This record gives sequence, C-alpha cells and structure tokens, in this order.
Amino acid sequence: MPSETTKTVYRQWVIEEYVLEKEPFYLPVADEIQLFEAAYAQKIPVLLKGPTGCGKTRFVEYMAYKLGRPLTVVKSRSKKDEEPQEVHGVPLVTVACHEDLTGSDLVGRYLLEGDGTKWIDGPLTRAVKVGAICYLDEVVEARKDTTVLIHPLTDHRRILPIEKRGELIEAHDGFLLVISYNPGYQSALKDLKQSTRQRFVSIEFNYPPKQLEAKIIQHESNVSEEMAQDLARLGEKVRNLKEHGLQEGASTRLLIYAGKLIEKSISPRRACQVAVVWTLTDDLEVQRSVEELVSTIFE
Amino acid sequence: MPSETTKTVYRQWVIEEYVLEKEPFYLPVADEIQLFEAAYAQKIPVLLKGPTGCGKTRFVEYMAYKLGRPLTVVKSRSKKDEEPQEVHGVPLVTVACHEDLTGSDLVGRYLLEGDGTKWIDGPLTRAVKVGAICYLDEVVEARKDTTVLIHPLTDHRRILPIEKRGELIEAHDGFLLVISYNPGYQSALKDLKQSTRQRFVSIEFNYPPKQLEAKIIQHESNVSEEMAQDLARLGEKVRNLKEHGLQEGASTRLLIYAGKLIEKSISPRRACQVAVVWTLTDDLEVQRSVEELVSTIFE
Amino acid sequence: MPSETTKTVYRQWVIEEYVLEKEPFYLPVADEIQLFEAAYAQKIPVLLKGPTGCGKTRFVEYMAYKLGRPLTVVKSRSKKDEEPQEVHGVPLVTVACHEDLTGSDLVGRYLLEGDGTKWIDGPLTRAVKVGAICYLDEVVEARKDTTVLIHPLTDHRRILPIEKRGELIEAHDGFLLVISYNPGYQSALKDLKQSTRQRFVSIEFNYPPKQLEAKIIQHESNVSEEMAQDLARLGEKVRNLKEHGLQEGASTRLLIYAGKLIEKSISPRRACQVAVVWTLTDDLEVQRSVEELVSTIFE
Amino acid sequence: MPSETTKTVYRQWVIEEYVLEKEPFYLPVADEIQLFEAAYAQKIPVLLKGPTGCGKTRFVEYMAYKLGRPLTVVKSRSKKDEEPQEVHGVPLVTVACHEDLTGSDLVGRYLLEGDGTKWIDGPLTRAVKVGAICYLDEVVEARKDTTVLIHPLTDHRRILPIEKRGELIEAHDGFLLVISYNPGYQSALKDLKQSTRQRFVSIEFNYPPKQLEAKIIQHESNVSEEMAQDLARLGEKVRNLKEHGLQEGASTRLLIYAGKLIEKSISPRRACQVAVVWTLTDDLEVQRSVEELVSTIFE
Amino acid sequence: MPSETTKTVYRQWVIEEYVLEKEPFYLPVADEIQLFEAAYAQKIPVLLKGPTGCGKTRFVEYMAYKLGRPLTVVKSRSKKDEEPQEVHGVPLVTVACHEDLTGSDLVGRYLLEGDGTKWIDGPLTRAVKVGAICYLDEVVEARKDTTVLIHPLTDHRRILPIEKRGELIEAHDGFLLVISYNPGYQSALKDLKQSTRQRFVSIEFNYPPKQLEAKIIQHESNVSEEMAQDLARLGEKVRNLKEHGLQEGASTRLLIYAGKLIEKSISPRRACQVAVVWTLTDDLEVQRSVEELVSTIFE
Amino acid sequence: MPSETTKTVYRQWVIEEYVLEKEPFYLPVADEIQLFEAAYAQKIPVLLKGPTGCGKTRFVEYMAYKLGRPLTVVKSRSKKDEEPQEVHGVPLVTVACHEDLTGSDLVGRYLLEGDGTKWIDGPLTRAVKVGAICYLDEVVEARKDTTVLIHPLTDHRRILPIEKRGELIEAHDGFLLVISYNPGYQSALKDLKQSTRQRFVSIEFNYPPKQLEAKIIQHESNVSEEMAQDLARLGEKVRNLKEHGLQEGASTRLLIYAGKLIEKSISPRRACQVAVVWTLTDDLEVQRSVEELVSTIFE
Repeated sequence: MPSETTKTVYRQWVIEEYVLEKEPFYLPVADEIQLFEAAYAQKIPVLLKGPTGCGKTRFVEYMAYKLGRPLTVVKSRSKKDEEPQEVHGVPLVTVACHEDLTGSDLVGRYLLEGDGTKWIDGPLTRAVKVGAICYLDEVVEARKDTTVLIHPLTDHRRILPIEKRGELIEAHDGFLLVISYNPGYQSALKDLKQSTRQRFVSIEFNYPPKQLEAKIIQHESNVSEEMAQDLARLGEKVRNLKEHGLQEGASTRLLIYAGKLIEKSISPRRACQVAVVWTLTDDLEVQRSVEELVSTIFE
Repeated sequence: MPSETTKTVYRQWVIEEYVLEKEPFYLPVADEIQLFEAAYAQKIPVLLKGPTGCGKTRFVEYMAYKLGRPLTVVKSRSKKDEEPQEVHGVPLVTVACHEDLTGSDLVGRYLLEGDGTKWIDGPLTRAVKVGAICYLDEVVEARKDTTVLIHPLTDHRRILPIEKRGELIEAHDGFLLVISYNPGYQSALKDLKQSTRQRFVSIEFNYPPKQLEAKIIQHESNVSEEMAQDLARLGEKVRNLKEHGLQEGASTRLLIYAGKLIEKSISPRRACQVAVVWTLTDDLEVQRSVEELVSTIFE
Repeated sequence: MPSETTKTVYRQWVIEEYVLEKEPFYLPVADEIQLFEAAYAQKIPVLLKGPTGCGKTRFVEYMAYKLGRPLTVVKSRSKKDEEPQEVHGVPLVTVACHEDLTGSDLVGRYLLEGDGTKWIDGPLTRAVKVGAICYLDEVVEARKDTTVLIHPLTDHRRILPIEKRGELIEAHDGFLLVISYNPGYQSALKDLKQSTRQRFVSIEFNYPPKQLEAKIIQHESNVSEEMAQDLARLGEKVRNLKEHGLQEGASTRLLIYAGKLIEKSISPRRACQVAVVWTLTDDLEVQRSVEELVSTIFE
Repeated sequence: MPSETTKTVYRQWVIEEYVLEKEPFYLPVADEIQLFEAAYAQKIPVLLKGPTGCGKTRFVEYMAYKLGRPLTVVKSRSKKDEEPQEVHGVPLVTVACHEDLTGSDLVGRYLLEGDGTKWIDGPLTRAVKVGAICYLDEVVEARKDTTVLIHPLTDHRRILPIEKRGELIEAHDGFLLVISYNPGYQSALKDLKQSTRQRFVSIEFNYPPKQLEAKIIQHESNVSEEMAQDLARLGEKVRNLKEHGLQEGASTRLLIYAGKLIEKSISPRRACQVAVVWTLTDDLEVQRSVEELVSTIFE
Repeated sequence: MPSETTKTVYRQWVIEEYVLEKEPFYLPVADEIQLFEAAYAQKIPVLLKGPTGCGKTRFVEYMAYKLGRPLTVVKSRSKKDEEPQEVHGVPLVTVACHEDLTGSDLVGRYLLEGDGTKWIDGPLTRAVKVGAICYLDEVVEARKDTTVLIHPLTDHRRILPIEKRGELIEAHDGFLLVISYNPGYQSALKDLKQSTRQRFVSIEFNYPPKQLEAKIIQHESNVSEEMAQDLARLGEKVRNLKEHGLQEGASTRLLIYAGKLIEKSISPRRACQVAVVWTLTDDLEVQRSVEELVSTIFE
Repeated sequence: MPSETTKTVYRQWVIEEYVLEKEPFYLPVADEIQLFEAAYAQKIPVLLKGPTGCGKTRFVEYMAYKLGRPLTVVKSRSKKDEEPQEVHGVPLVTVACHEDLTGSDLVGRYLLEGDGTKWIDGPLTRAVKVGAICYLDEVVEARKDTTVLIHPLTDHRRILPIEKRGELIEAHDGFLLVISYNPGYQSALKDLKQSTRQRFVSIEFNYPPKQLEAKIIQHESNVSEEMAQDLARLGEKVRNLKEHGLQEGASTRLLIYAGKLIEKSISPRRACQVAVVWTLTDDLEVQRSVEELVSTIFE
C-alpha cells in the first residue's frame, strides 16, 4: 500500500567500500598498536584473544582507520548527487561468525540471473581483491570448512581458491586477515585447531584499567567525570565477582548504557539494575550480590 | 471449483506497515514505560524477561503505539478505495522465533523471477529500513546465526550486513531492537550468550498484581467485577502451586478464557476446568490440586 | 500405455472447500458440544486431549458440520456439469502432523512458474482466509517452527505472518484453530510448550462408555445388537489390560473392524484375533492374555 | 559412443499399470486368502507380519492376481505395435520403504518443465487414483511423515491430501493399502505407532511347513522331489538353530538358491555352503554349526 | 588462459560401455570361477566377502571378461576417427559405495535442460538396461535407501522401480548384481540386514596362498622371482601379526608397491618401510614389530 | 558506488594451470626426494604423515616444481597483454579438506546456464585430465564419500567415475594423488580406513633438525644467523614441552613469525610472546612454562 508516504532514507554501502568516516575513539592499553603495525607490514595474520566487550572490534576499527592508505572518494549509495567525501583508512570487512556460516558465505556463490547464473563474491573474496582488512569475529563459531578455507590465505601462498569457479586468487598487498576468539568460552568441541592457530600471531586483550575505562564511559555516555568514575568502579568490582557465579564480567558497553539511561533522568541505581544487574544474570542470588555492589557506590 | 461463492474478505498488511489502530489496553506495573522511553531515546536495545503470558508482547505493542511519531496514512490492502485512515505509532515488526528460524528468514532471500532473481527483504531488514521496532519473541529459540546477525545492529555501528547482496545498511533513526526471553525455560543449551546479552538493557516482568489483573480480566472478558476478582484470585493461588508440580503458573490469558466461557453460559467451575486445569497439565494429581483451588473459590 | 482403458473416475476437492456432505454419526458423551460452541463463539482456540481412536477426529468433523454457516454450493471437481449441491457446515481443513512438517508446509511456498514464481497457499493460510476450522492432528509431532507459527493466530491478534511474502493476514471471523494431542504418548522431548498450551482451552476425551460404544459398533459394522454388545464388552476388558503390557487399549475402530469381518463370514474368534489381538501387540504373552478375553466372550 | 550396437531391448511399465501376467505360484497355509478377501471387500487396510522371506510379497502378488476385476488390455511400453494382451488382476503398486523415503516420494512432486512446473504423481497417488493395491513393504523403515500420510486413507474418510497442490483425493473403490512389518526386527525406535497400527487388521505369517516348502523348492529350482525334501529339512533344522546365535532362520529363497546351484552341477554340500551357511552369518562358530547340519543331510 | 598449450588427451567412456580390453591377470584359488558361472547362469545375485585388497575387485573384472557374450565394437570417446576395436566381456559397472551414496545416485535424476528437465540414468539403471554386471563395492557403506532399492532386482521380479519417473524396468537377461562386503569391518550399526543378505549367494575370499601371491607380485611389479617370494613371505608373516595390534594384514597391493619401489632402486628394507610399515599403522610399537619382520627377511 | 576509484589489480589462475614460478626453498632431511621420484615414476599414490607445519605442503610444492615436465607458457589472467612467461613444473592442485567437503566439490557439478546446465569440473577432475599432482591436505577431515571416490584412481584402474555424467575418465600419465595426514590428531572416528590407506606408500615427516631449521628461519625472516639459531633453539625446547600440556609443538612458521616481528623492531621477548607463547595455548600455566624457555634464551 501507499508505502511512499512512510518511505524513509537509509544509508547503505558496498561491503568492501566500508571505510570509517571519522577516527574511532580508542585509548591504547599497551603496545598493541605497534604490534599490529608490525604484523600488517610483514603480512602476518593476527589473532585477537579476549573477553566479551573488552574492545577488540573497536581496536580493529581503529587500526583500519590508522593504517589508511591515501584513499579515494566514497559516498553512500542513497545520496547520489552529494559531493564525494574524503575518507581515510583501509576498508574493513567484518564478518560475525556463527554455527551456520559456511565457506560459501565467505567466498561467494552463484545466483540465477536472466539467462544463466551470476557469481556473487562473498565478503572474504571482496576483501582479498581490494586489499581490505577482513575481520572474522568469533571465528571458532563458524563451520569447519571456513577455517580450512583461510589456510592458503594465511601461509606464504596468500591465495584464495574459489573451487566453484576453478580459480585461485592472490591476495592484494593491503589484505590482512584478523580473527578474534574468546578463550573463556571455548569448549573442547569448539577449539581453534593448532593447524589453524599456528598461522597467526596473537594479541591478548582484557578490560581497560579503571582510569581508562572512566574516560571511555564519560566520552561515550556524556555523564559527568565523577559519575563515569563511579561506573568504572562498579565495573571493576563486578568483574571481581566473576568467581562467585558470574559467567562473565560486565563489559564497558553495559557501563556506558547505564550512563546513557542516567542522562535520560533514570536514577543511577535503577539504571545500573536495568543495564548491569538484570542483563548479567537471571540468577536471583547473583543478582543480589551485584545489587549490593551497586548500592555501596550509589547509596 | 466455484470458489467465488465461498470467497470472503480478509485483511492483510505489508509487514513493516503494521501499525496498531487503537491504543492497546495496558496497565503499567512500575516505571517500565519510562525505562523503555529512555532506552528508545538513547537507541539502546531492550531485552524483556518474564514468564509465559505475563504481558511482554502487549507491552511492546503499547510502547510502539505510544512512541508514535506523527505518522502517515496507511490502509489495509483489501480495501483499496477506502479513505486513508489516520494511524498512530511506530511500525511494529514481530517475529516469533523458533528452532528453524535462520538468518535468511530475518534478513531476506533471493526469489526466482521472470528473468533472473528478485531480492525479498526479510522482516528485520524491513524494520531497519523504515525505522520500526523489531520485536524478536523468544529469541533464544532461533538458530545461532540469527543472534550473531543482530550484533552489528546492537552496538555503536547500528548496521545490518546483507552478505548475500554484499551490502551494509545503516539502521533508520527510529529503529529499535527488542527481544524477549523466558528465564524459567532456558536450559544450558539454549541460553543467550553473554556476548549477545551484553548488548541490551533488561527489563524484568512478572504476572500483574491481583487488583490489576482483575481489571484486565474484566476488561477483556466482559465478566462482572466480582467474577473478575475471583478469577484473579484463582490465578494467584495457582501460581503459588508452581513449586508443587506445575511447570508454569496460569497466564492472565487463561483466566480471560475462563471468563469468556462463563459469558457464554458455561458454569464457572466447568469453565475453569477447561480453561485452566486441563490446559495447565496432564498430570492427574496436579489437576486434582488445581481443581481443589477452583472449588474453594467457586463452590 | 493405453491408460485410457484403465482410467477411472475419482473425486477431488480444493482443500478449503472440503465440507462434509452428510451429518457425521456422533454420539456425545458429556457437554463437549456446548463447550466447543462457546469456544467457537468467543474465538478461543481448542485443544483436544485423548488416546488413539477415541473419536477426536470424528468430533471435530461433527462440530464443523453442526456449526455450519448457511453455506454456498460446492461440487466436486470431477463432475463438472453436475448440478451444484447444497452443502452444510464450516469448511474443515485437517493436517496430520509429523516430524517433518515445517512451517512452509502449513503457510505456503513459492513454486516455479512460466516466467517467475507463483505463491501457493498452504492449508493453514487457506483456512485463515476462508474462515475454516483448521484441525492440526497430533500437533506435537510437527517441527517446532509450526508451533510458533500459530502463536499470533491464537492470541488477541489473530494474524498469520507470511514472512516469505512480507505480509500479515488477519483471520476470517469463522476461523478457529483446533489441535489434538495424546497425553499418553508424549515424552519430555515432545511436549507442548506452556507458551503454546496456554493459548487454548482444553477438552479431555476418553473411550466412549460401553453402551454408547455398542451403538457405534452396530451402526458402523452392521452386526446384530448382541454381537455389538459383545464386541463393546471385549473393548472394555482389553482396556483394563493396559497396565499388563498393552501400550494402549483397543480403539473403537478395531472393534468395528472385527464386526465387519464377522459380517463377511469370518468367525468371531478369528475376526477378533486378526482385528484386535494381532493388531494390538507382537508380544506373544500379551497376545495370549487378550485371546483369553476373546474366548471368554466368544466361546 | 556407438551405443546403437550394444543397445538392447528391455521392458518397462507405468507403475500403476503393473499387473501380473500369470498366476503367481502360491500355496496357502491357512485361511489367509479368505481373510484378505473379507478385508478387501470391507475396505479394511491389511498389515502383514512375519520374518524375512516367508512369502509376504508373494502372497500380496497372488491376492492382486486373484482379486482381479475384469481388466483391460495392457502392453509393455517397449513393444508398441504388438497386440494388446489380456491381463488379469488388480494393479499392484509396491514400494520398498527405507529410512529416506519421504512423503513426497509417495505422493508426488513438482518437476521443472519447459515453462513452469509439472506435477508428477507418486506411487501412492497413482494407486489411489486407479484403485490399485498399494503395498508398502517394511513400512516402519520409512520416515515418520509417511506413516501420518496414510492416516486419512485408512479411516472412514479414505482421502489422500496432496498439500502441495491444495487438493484432497478420494480413493478409488478398488484401492487397498497393505503394509508389511517384521516384528523380529523392530527396535523401540522403529516401532509402528499404535495410532497407525490400529488402522489395520493384521495377518501373521511364518515359514511354510516342511511339506509345503519342499513343494515350493521343487517348483522353483527344478531339483528332484527328494532333493527338495532334503533342502526343506535343512531349512527346518537351521531355523531351530535361531536361538543359538543365528539372527534369523534361512528363508525359502536361500533353499531355492541352493537347489538352483545344484542344478548347475555344484555339489549339494558346496551349494548349501555358498547359498545358506556363508549367507546367513559371518560368525565362524555359527557357520560351523550350520555346516554340521548340512553334512548330516548331505553326507 | 592459453589452456590449448597445456591441453592433453585423456580417455573416457560411457559408464555402461566400459568393457575390459585385455584379460585381467587372475589366478583362481578354488572353485570360485565355477560358482560365479553357475550363479550368473541362474541369475542369482552374488555377495563377495573378504578383507581389504584380497582380490575381490580383480575377480569381478576377470569374470566380466570371461563371461563375455560375443560383444560389439566399442571405442573410447576421445579417439573418434580411430578404428572400432574388438572387445570382449560383459560390461562392468562398478560403484564404490559410501555414506552419502543415495538411491538417486544409483538410479538417476532429473537435470535442468534448455526448456524443461532431462532424466539422466544412474549407473544401476544403465547396468539394468544393457545387461551389465553391476558391482556395488562395500555396499554396507551406502545409505539405507540403496539397499532397499536393490530388493526388487534381487528376487524373482528382477525389476527396478524408478519412482521419480513412475516406471518399472525389467532387468536385461545379462544383468547380474554383485556386492562386496568386508566382515572384519562391520560394526553392529553398519551390518547388512538379513532381508538384504538373504537375496544373495555368498563367496568368501581371503589373501592368496604364498606361492600364488609370489606369482602375482612378480607379474605386477616386475621384480625377480626370488624377491617376489621374499615379499610374499613378508606378507604372510605380517598377517600373522594381526592379533598383535594390526587392524588388518598387508594387502597384496602393498607388497607389489614395495616391489615397484625396489625396481626403482630403493633398497628393499626402505621400500618395505615406506610401502608396508608406515602404511599399515601409526603406532610406533606395532611399526617396530613389523620392521623386525622386514629385517629378518631382508637383512 | 564509484568502485572504479578503489579498484585494484589482483592476480588469478585457472586452478589446474597453477605452476610455481620459482623454485620453492626446500632443504631435504633424508631421501624423501628419491622416494617421491620413485613413486611418481611408478604411479604409486603417496601419503605424507606428520605434525602441523613440519613442511609437508612445502615438500609437495618443491616436488611439483622439480618433477617439471618441459612446460608451456602460462600467464596470470589479469595481465592479458603481458608476455607469456616461462614456467616450470607439474601443475599442482591443492585442496584443503574439511568436514563439509563432498565428492561433488572434488569431481564437479552442474551449473545452471542460459538454456540448460553446464558442467564445471572440480579440482580433482581437472588434475586427472591435465596430469597434475593433486594434493588433498588433511584428507581425513573430508566426508567419507570423498575417500571412496579416490579408490578407482589409486589402484591399477586409475580411472575417475563421474557418475552424474555417466562417464569414466582415465587419468593422464602425469597425474599423481598425494594426501596428507596428521597422526597426532586423529581420533578413532576420523581415521583413514585400511581400505584407503593400503592404496598409498607413506612417507613420515617431522620437524627439521635444529641446524636446518635455523637456516630456514634465517632465509624466510631475514634475521641474523645468530638470532635464527636462537629461535631454532627455542623451537626445539618448546617441542620438548609437548608432554607437559602443550597440544602440539611450535611449528617452524611461528619461529619465522617471531623473526619477522623482530625485523620490525619488536623486542625478541615480546615477539616470541606474541608469535609463540600466546599462539600455542590459552592455558596460563603452560604459557608461563613457555615464557620461561623464552627468557632463558633471550635474557
């Protein structure tokens, strides 16, 4: 029906042309930026290890921006007549891996077309061709055919076989494969095989130290410096509870959520209950322990 | 065969144009409306937790109506010449999740067409584009690829990758993802991963308090105020039986069903037997316990 | 090869135009007819519980006939020039559920056509559109996506989402969903979830009492009243054996089969052996116990 | 390559036109012929129970021939100009069931055609339409959707729903469903559900008595009467070994094989070793026991 | 790319026209040739039992050659202008069975063509039509639907139902089904069902006796008679080790491999290490035992 | 969008035309080159056994280069006007096997085309036709149908059946099948069946001796001779830790990675931490043990 009236403008990109428009907010913890730069220069694939929400994705975005080759103009599809926009950074192709992710999802597939079929490159092939950073998030979740697929891309050959087309493609010089992995999660069943692991250098991540985290919270949620420090303090205390029934600590993101609710006039205790306590666990006892931490900080 | 004679008129909508026509009947229990408004304003995804039939779906419908941007005209498809109708509310796209729900079911798929294929947006893509509230009911039931799919939509990026088309779509400003989850149900196997949970603020729900529930029953089933209170009393008592063999308490809906049967001249005890006792359990002993509760109220 | 010579006439219907041509033979046990009428009037979905062959299917057929709106003319497809025939009853769409029944089987699917694809409504969509009674027999056998599919149809919304078409359909006023379920069968794995159960009122069925069953046997198999009573007596005795190794009692249908064989000059004892004993079990000892019951009645 | 030279004539039939050309050789054991005739007259589906190779298939072929309606002319496809041939019998459609047999395999499926799709009836639909006997051999092996499919065909309705076409087909008067089942085989997992069993009368089969079996062996393998009796004696003795490690006794077919090898100048002991001993088991000790039986008969 | 330059000539056949061009080298152990001839004459299917590499495949090839009907001319596809070549033997269609082999793989399937679909006969259908020997190697590995498929081909009917086409095909007179099976392998899960076994006569095979094996080794690898006898001696000794941790003995093929390496100037001990020791097992201790045997023969 | 601006040049090959352009750097450990040459001359398939990263893939590349027939000109696809380039070596077709690799992935499949379907040869068929070395890496990972597929290619027949096309293809003279296998990995479930193993000669590999490994590290990472020897020393010590909780030793590749990071000014200890310690294991205690080894070498 009269959908024109409700029609709205949305922006979209070709996957391999997605370049960050402004510098992502990232505060380094150690020499991780130098390590990544060395690996990128030597074309060594990188494995990022660390817990949920500790900043791995943000780090890759930052590096993609920072390593930026002098880049061309890109504009979003929906704004055709707009002026080309100066962008900066290596294109970043991110794939969130899951149990049903197959090799075809990464490499590409044939599609029926007018008279015959048309090949559509998958995100990995796109990244290989344009020289993007390809970030496979939580790679162990994917089906096994995907891990094997990346083998010839991650040794001296740097080639991607596209068996359905009978082709081999050599990776563009700018291409780098980055994968992430949460060691806290993995079961024996879903481990990264040694024959895959030993194709990467590994950088271990953890939650940011309290002072750094407070700065991040303040920057992202707009709360006062004091409130940000209180929230960072809560984060630290909650993570110490991890041994006492919490599956995982509160991510920085949850603390930012609390801050954002507070900015909308929700009381700090209620905001923390909704953003942190109820989100972290369904267990009533563990909820009570976390709420106690909340009330020691926000009386 | 002569199907014209049996042909009947039915109404249908384009999914993303489904807007509630009148204000849903909803009685708030606490500050859940304020919390949802704050989250919507800050674009923080919302997780609703609570038992079967406690009103989560109704709450989302109410919020979609209440948050209504000044909205355009929409009319149902089957009434083409009818006058456009003033409607109110954010479009609401609801997806009941299940074990076989895949990412393609949410995002979209290619369909064979005259000469070639045609892409059909799935409900999530539709919601992302028009700025609807997308409500994924019982999200843990879905296949794992769906939970991963919503990750880039629920962090600072707010983008939906459509890998089969090689595209990224940025969510419309009005878009919000809401998911629901019944903590009583979940087994270890079907839990919401922390890396998914920690992308939401969480609001916990429970059955409405007795006085409120009586009002709802009366409003929905048309029984007398007294009868409604009796039924609400039954609800409360049955829920207390939960420890004694009942898998879950009686939902408000079942009490309304009993009221509706009573309105059609079925005796209250028989109505409660059919709507509550036999529906809740097949276990003869538990049935007997619930029937005793029924007979203390409706002698 | 010359298939014209063996060609024979068979009758066929469009599924949603299947209306019973004459009143099904049904003898009520209690107030089940009134309960069903009240539920139908209030648009409350109905769950029928009971053992194999106790008459649930027949009851639904009877109600579909009895609730008959003044109905139009329908004729079977194969008799094109025949006069339209007066029929009576709500259309009845029956789906026997099984492990491989998917949502698409119920809702519909696309079919390749000349140039493009054509949508074919599934039986549930057909029932929703014309206002039929849709009877899902042994619903727990179906795949989980089907149970979730019926959720929006069985609450206040009464809508059927057809996600592959991006549409929502509102059920016709005459539509009612009826499901059946054999509590004796269910294992923990194949139980009806509470979130599904609590969308129905439930009517429990059992085998008909002896006098009633004798009348049914006589009516269906044409045996003498005395023989019918003997067979009903056998039924009663066999069901009492259930604790002693019989998985389930003999259904009325088996007793009718025995009667029909007797009508074709098979001796009563042989008829009962073939229709009841050998059908109920492969266990030699249990067979012997049932045969003893047979021989006490038909010496 | 020059396939014309090796091209040979083979005969083929349309499935539902397969009628036996001459009376199958069948020697009745008890009143099974009368029972089947009564069931066929009353349209009661038949379940045949019994061990491997005891003659169930042959019995169905015999009954199909014997129940023969005055039948039309049929000729095999490859002999187009030949004179129509007088045949006799109800068409017999046999389906050997297996783990991957689905409902579509029985009912039919759409096939892509020039411009659009073409529906191909499956063997069950063919049998339903022409009034054939449809014999589902080892029905419990099939997938569960097939057992449910036959439910509406095996109660008073005698209809076959073809959901993919949105049609119901009423079975031709001559149609009868016959299924077979080997009780020795069945595990708990692969049992016939009571709701399926109780739609049939059951006839139990066993190996033929020795005198009868000797006649069959002589008729089929052409050996002397004495040799046939020796082989039948061996069969009887081997079946008595069943408790001592043999999974199942030797079928009549194996004894016939032995006879046929003997007819080709293989010595009786060697023929029995090859046809019976090595075929029945891989277990050396059990082989030795059976060979001893062989040597007591054929010294 | 310039593929013409690397283009090479290879030979190919239509499957059912594959006839052996020269007599396979086969040395009989007992009366297996007479047994196979008798079975072929009587159209009795044959089951070959025996360990890996004991010569079952070679035996079938030999029999196909030997049973040769006066045969027509066949030439390989790639040599179109060449003179037709005199060949000899029954066509031999071999199918190596595996876990994913389905009935369609054997019988045939529809393929999309210009306008519509085209049926492609599978290897079994091809063999049935031209009267080839169809050899299903390691038949228990195949999916269950395949074993059931061969039932009507292996009893008195000798017909192949092609359900997807609604046809029955009668086997050509020359057709014979041969299956093989390694009893040492089979687990309870992957056993040949009695209802399948009892359709065959069975011939048991084992490794050839030492003198015979030496002749084979000499013939195939070209080593001296003495070296061949040494290698055959090694084979015999290794097979005696089977109880001591070896899963299976060394096949004749491995001894031939050793001979062939020796012919290329690899020392006998190194050749045996590479062809026998390291191939048979990864277990260091078992490797040492086998190497000791090697060194007693080749000091 | 304006993708021309970001368009970059990448190289690609037809799979079976992939020939190494320069001699791979390979230092032999024993007589493995002679063994492979003898096997290739005698057309005996080769199985390479050994741990992750010990050089199996590099060895096959080296042999493909070394065995080079006088070869034709090949140029990469993207440089159409460039001069043909002299290359050397047997084409090498590598397939990294995985759990979802099916026979069709190796042999080929039909693809929809303008009017009809087009057959696309898989990598194995391509290798068979042009006479390439086909290297199936980690073959036990593949589905079982693939292992059976290679049986007729690895005995005296050397043919590849393409059942979907009804064809047999005889392997080109230059074709050789090479498979690899990591005995440390294999579980009982994923073992190479004896009937497959016994079609190969086997060459066992291990990590290179320290002096050799130092040369390789120096050559590949460009570090000083001394640094290379330190890294090789670390490799040796880490491998000795294998009994103490390390799943597998550090591959030569990881030592090269460390060298490359050192070349980019990362300190040796940090480089070893990132390339060796964190990559090998997530276990904190094992990490500490490995770090101690690092600090004894790089104080």
